[in-house]
Amino acid sequence: MKFVTFYNQDGQMRAGWLDGDRVIDMKIASKGELPDNMAEFIKNNEKYMKNVKTLSGSTNLPSYSLEEIRLTVPLPNPVTFRDFVAFETHVKNATKRSGDTVAPEWYEMPIFYYSNPNAMKGPGEEVKRPAKCIRLDYELELACIIGKEGRNIKSDEAEEYIFGYTILNDWSARDIQMKEMKVLLGPAKGKDFATSIGPYLLTKNELEPYKSAGRFDLEMTAAVNGEVLSRGNFKDIYYTFGDMIERASEEVTLFPGDIIGSGTVGFGCIMELGAEVHRWLEPGDEVELKVTGLGTLKNRII
Amino acid sequence: MKFVTFYNQDGQMRAGWLDGDRVIDMKIASKGELPDNMAEFIKNNEKYMKNVKTLSGSTNLPSYSLEEIRLTVPLPNPVTFRDFVAFETHVKNATKRSGDTVAPEWYEMPIFYYSNPNAMKGPGEEVKRPAKCIRLDYELELACIIGKEGRNIKSDEAEEYIFGYTILNDWSARDIQMKEMKVLLGPAKGKDFATSIGPYLLTKNELEPYKSAGRFDLEMTAAVNGEVLSRGNFKDIYYTFGDMIERASEEVTLFPGDIIGSGTVGFGCIMELGAEVHRWLEPGDEVELKVTGLGTLKNRII
Repeated sequence: MKFVTFYNQDGQMRAGWLDGDRVIDMKIASKGELPDNMAEFIKNNEKYMKNVKTLSGSTNLPSYSLEEIRLTVPLPNPVTFRDFVAFETHVKNATKRSGDTVAPEWYEMPIFYYSNPNAMKGPGEEVKRPAKCIRLDYELELACIIGKEGRNIKSDEAEEYIFGYTILNDWSARDIQMKEMKVLLGPAKGKDFATSIGPYLLTKNELEPYKSAGRFDLEMTAAVNGEVLSRGNFKDIYYTFGDMIERASEEVTLFPGDIIGSGTVGFGCIMELGAEVHRWLEPGDEVELKVTGLGTLKNRII
Repeated sequence: MKFVTFYNQDGQMRAGWLDGDRVIDMKIASKGELPDNMAEFIKNNEKYMKNVKTLSGSTNLPSYSLEEIRLTVPLPNPVTFRDFVAFETHVKNATKRSGDTVAPEWYEMPIFYYSNPNAMKGPGEEVKRPAKCIRLDYELELACIIGKEGRNIKSDEAEEYIFGYTILNDWSARDIQMKEMKVLLGPAKGKDFATSIGPYLLTKNELEPYKSAGRFDLEMTAAVNGEVLSRGNFKDIYYTFGDMIERASEEVTLFPGDIIGSGTVGFGCIMELGAEVHRWLEPGDEVELKVTGLGTLKNRII
């Protein structure tokens, strides 16, 4: 299932799912049994998924075309947002650029930072370059959405706690980020102004066919103004989402609606490619992230 | 006003306020006009404060003694939790301990990191030392609670966006923290297992009498098992809450229910005092933070 959040013709935000190129409003389709927002749906997804399964078998549900509505962030206000740095090539490239080498601790455990859950952007939405930022960058990532409360979850049991997946763009103001990181508390203002997710949340069962040897084989690309700059594959990840969930949930409760980002795939941002490949992002640029099975997440810089 | 959250005799979590040593359940006192939780109250505090003011003039509101209820986290699930490092002495001491000097960037802007808003502990509640932690520490801080939505707020207008203040203990697993910070993304697992706030949220008007020359003159102490280890004053802060709110809200919307921590006052943790003054915290230890006007926040390590 592909779950979405959208504005209907009256400008109201609603939750629903895609049926081919038709959009189903879950509250209308269920005659009020399902909620009008994804936060509430995910919170009680074990209960609600039964209704959805029954309904999605029906042939004549009321629906909209994609032109009649406007898609927005599939999960507008995640409970929390953790972003890991789980691709070895990215961490190697990023440290090399700043004249450093990868800290040995990176190989000991998956590392993450908390970021702002309240600045999410959806497919087609505009992203404002911060006034003090010249070096605006995209970051090509995958995210998983937690669907079940848990604590001290082991990597091999983590699957059970995942609701689904989506594409994530961790927009980064490199100049702001590099400056604040000198104080060693990590990135904050360099990354908290916007994060894009979408276009939809794909339930975990639908990514299963892409799994081989325990890893998702998913092509990932990022294009700026139609030109593909980054090309990677999710199977190259060093720590799996299971490993990340194990780390995140150690001594801490995870809740339905928490988002966990994978970190950037190798060469999945301009910083890694270097100025010789592309300039920093500027107002007017269109950035398009594409991942096998997860669709396309496009945003324009303003 | 001192707002609290507590468990009533039926074990239900309710919101209320202190009237001397009596506890008022706001929902009962208002005959259902006020909500049963502080998140909802703060979200609409401009509206609800009028009811509270009318009610708090009454002489015979139904109330509990402090023995009849159990106080808990005054705001159980903050919207977000940002923690700054705004005291110069702390940042000097902390960097000196790791053989470093303060980064010049610290003097250019207030620096913060995001932490976990969903592991809050209240007054009297137990804090579990993480299994992998030997070097458990307290951190003596103040926090302000945002009461009004805003973006790009200037320091001198920030007052308007504050709902109130409370004591904050940013429990830190120094061993876990130091290891993960080598990867330069800041602290995460070293601090996300627990944060204490309380015992109550004091509305901003009640801290006004302690202001002199634009700074709050508030004594701050931390004691372990009755022995005062840390002693500081909030007026020594380098960046005011106004400065912190200006930084946090730059290009980002703040929401009612966001919590902003000041960072540790100088010598406000064991790491700064050194092993010669006190060993790390151990199960059984009682840690008591006290701040003028804001009461006492006590927790026991288990």
